[in-house]
Amino acid sequence: MIKPLEMLNQSLKKAVLVELKAGRAFRGTLEGYDPHMNLVLRDAEELVDRESVRKVDLTVVRGDNVVYVSP
Amino acid sequence: MIKPLEMLNQSLKKAVLVELKAGRAFRGTLEGYDPHMNLVLRDAEELVDRESVRKVDLTVVRGDNVVYVSP
Amino acid sequence: MIKPLEMLNQSLKKAVLVELKAGRAFRGTLEGYDPHMNLVLRDAEELVDRESVRKVDLTVVRGDNVVYVSP
Amino acid sequence: MIKPLEMLNQSLKKAVLVELKAGRAFRGTLEGYDPHMNLVLRDAEELVDRESVRKVDLTVVRGDNVVYVSP
Amino acid sequence: MIKPLEMLNQSLKKAVLVELKAGRAFRGTLEGYDPHMNLVLRDAEELVDRESVRKVDLTVVRGDNVVYVSP
Amino acid sequence: MIKPLEMLNQSLKKAVLVELKAGRAFRGTLEGYDPHMNLVLRDAEELVDRESVRKVDLTVVRGDNVVYVSP
Amino acid sequence: MIKPLEMLNQSLKKAVLVELKAGRAFRGTLEGYDPHMNLVLRDAEELVDRESVRKVDLTVVRGDNVVYVSP
Repeated sequence: MIKPLEMLNQSLKKAVLVELKAGRAFRGTLEGYDPHMNLVLRDAEELVDRESVRKVDLTVVRGDNVVYVSP
Repeated sequence: MIKPLEMLNQSLKKAVLVELKAGRAFRGTLEGYDPHMNLVLRDAEELVDRESVRKVDLTVVRGDNVVYVSP
Repeated sequence: MIKPLEMLNQSLKKAVLVELKAGRAFRGTLEGYDPHMNLVLRDAEELVDRESVRKVDLTVVRGDNVVYVSP
Repeated sequence: MIKPLEMLNQSLKKAVLVELKAGRAFRGTLEGYDPHMNLVLRDAEELVDRESVRKVDLTVVRGDNVVYVSP
Repeated sequence: MIKPLEMLNQSLKKAVLVELKAGRAFRGTLEGYDPHMNLVLRDAEELVDRESVRKVDLTVVRGDNVVYVSP
Repeated sequence: MIKPLEMLNQSLKKAVLVELKAGRAFRGTLEGYDPHMNLVLRDAEELVDRESVRKVDLTVVRGDNVVYVSP
Repeated sequence: MIKPLEMLNQSLKKAVLVELKAGRAFRGTLEGYDPHMNLVLRDAEELVDRESVRKVDLTVVRGDNVVYVSP
């Protein structure tokens, strides 16, 4: 078995797609996480309804908005 | 009695349907879970309103989005 | 007094109707539960807006979706 | 002062109206409760938008759906 | 400083307006509360969109529905 | 660093704007708070969609409705 | 790995964009935070649907409204 947080740990420094509630998403490099699934992303592109709306060097996403994280 | 998390444990390495809130779902192989029902799925297909929208090798689903998991 | 979880315990192996949020429901045999009201159902029929949409051998329902369980 | 759970305790074996979120309600006899306000109702009538939709011998209502309980 | 629960304590046996989520409210006498802001109201009038819809001798309101309580 | 609750402490006895979810707000004097951001306001004006709808001498706001508090 | 709260700590005294639920956002200087992601912002501009609606010297944002914080 791979525990969910262990899977996030294996995804550090890798490109991930982070799907959020309400039609938002981020593509970026996973730099950090905690047990609430709060995430740190680097070189991240924010997508709203699959359209790119912004690029940010770094962002801290609050875990309760996360639907899934795919490496 | 089968405890819900025990049932998830028996479903490891098996194909599952994971129905999420807001019309989303995943079909894939259950690779991991934790007590919050955060899940790890492998070879997963994401469905939105029953239509396939994406295939991912691995995904970590945050438990609070889960409606049910069916092996 | 019958505590709610005690009532679920008395309903094990019996047919139950599980009404969920957002117009969903399951009819099936209660095989397990935990203190969050996560449930295990066997031979379950999923209903959306009172119409049968799927039959599943087993399903694990996450408790926070449950409105009520009636034996 | 009457603590809310004490008030529920005094309502055991009495007819109550249980107003739930999203336009649902139950009228029935309160048979049990716990600190989350999960409730056990006997001889209960389910109301949706004030119309009777179902009668059940017993039901376990998950507390987070409850708006109020009136004896 | 007056702590919020202390303020509720000072409001016991007094008339209060309890504004709830989703357009509901109660006017009544505060008879009890607990740290979740679960409330006991006596001689309470339920208001929906500012219209009186029901009078009840006693009611237990679940705290997570409360927006504010005004003595 | 100023911790958020420390900032509320410094705002005691001062005029604050309390923006709530669902288009509500209060303007008033902050008289108390607790770690959940439950608040006590004195001489408060309730605003719905920026229109004044009510004035109250005292009100206890449940913290989970708060979006922000500005002194 | 950079833990999410560590990232907030590194952003103290810096300009941040705080995206909130329901179309709100703040631009301002991060002056404080706590483990719930409650935030203190100084010289902050509130944006609703990307339009500036208000400027405030100081504001305490309740963490459960936060979607992400970008330095």
